[in-house]
Amino acid sequence: MKRVVTISREFGAGGHSLGKMVAEQLGIAFYDQQIIERAVAETGFSPEFVKEAGEYASTTHSFLFNLALSHSVSAAAGDLSNYDKIYIVQARIIRELADKAPCVIVGRCADYVLRDREDCFNVFVHADRETRARRVLEVYGEIEGKSIEERLDEKDKKRRLYYKHYTDRDWGILQNYHLTVNTGVIPTELAAKWICEAVK
Amino acid sequence: MKRVVTISREFGAGGHSLGKMVAEQLGIAFYDQQIIERAVAETGFSPEFVKEAGEYASTTHSFLFNLALSHSVSAAAGDLSNYDKIYIVQARIIRELADKAPCVIVGRCADYVLRDREDCFNVFVHADRETRARRVLEVYGEIEGKSIEERLDEKDKKRRLYYKHYTDRDWGILQNYHLTVNTGVIPTELAAKWICEAVK
Repeated sequence: MKRVVTISREFGAGGHSLGKMVAEQLGIAFYDQQIIERAVAETGFSPEFVKEAGEYASTTHSFLFNLALSHSVSAAAGDLSNYDKIYIVQARIIRELADKAPCVIVGRCADYVLRDREDCFNVFVHADRETRARRVLEVYGEIEGKSIEERLDEKDKKRRLYYKHYTDRDWGILQNYHLTVNTGVIPTELAAKWICEAVK
Repeated sequence: MKRVVTISREFGAGGHSLGKMVAEQLGIAFYDQQIIERAVAETGFSPEFVKEAGEYASTTHSFLFNLALSHSVSAAAGDLSNYDKIYIVQARIIRELADKAPCVIVGRCADYVLRDREDCFNVFVHADRETRARRVLEVYGEIEGKSIEERLDEKDKKRRLYYKHYTDRDWGILQNYHLTVNTGVIPTELAAKWICEAVK
């Protein structure tokens, strides 16, 4: 029996909507922005900075970072970038939430953070670029001076680098997920129903 | 509406069983071994050789191979390995089958061969090594002098090389599939039901 659903997603593929549907149908908690809010409260950084940090890989050397991660933040805090501190706080928050009660967690390398748990169901959501472009324009609107193509490329690149930096794994390797769905072809409602069936 | 389901699979992940279930539930044709039988009939090679060729990448240079592919086999047949000739015949058989009627096709790069069709639903099936080892021993039994670990590694490596050689794409990139499922966690029956729901 799986208690925690993690959702990794390409920008514009509808991972947030999918996660929300699953949480509602299963009657369990849903965490996306809420993790940012908690990290804001704990770190004292601004919400904008924490949100941004969630998709920027830091430049701290991985060795130092992993040292800090295994010895608590404070031990090597002087050597850590603010991005890394936020990652560490978010990872702890994710573990606490997963311990507390069944939930759906979107993004923030939750699949990796919770990799030692046997009760996670890991999903990756992707779609063709046309579908994603359409959805991004619907949900977020246009940004002056930046094409939708550039926005997709930029976000995907950030997510790929962020994941690689903090997990030392490539982003979007299908073997790391129990289920991957293309929401350009599979309606989000159908994918949500499947996830509920899989974890029940 | 999707007419053709292609199933790519790790060795021992149950792709054959899954495909068969889907074909039965949808009441459409199922092709796995049958493609080999047709290729045997057309090429005159032995069944064993054609079966083996289905997972060996040839050593023909890709340039020559693609030249032959675009100009029909006979044009450059002298430069083609027997493996390549079999691939080309199988690819033509796959296209003919997909043209003829709705069907499920397992393996043989069918996702790639049919990549220009809009009516394909592409699935990749994988599982953790323990699940696959158990299934391989159940279905095929032990092989003297070869550990189950070696057999898994060998088959996966062959499939990866074969796919790469003939498609120039990496094997198992999730973006190439509409759905990927881990059958170590998702029962094959459930995955079959989902595929039927998706293509209906």
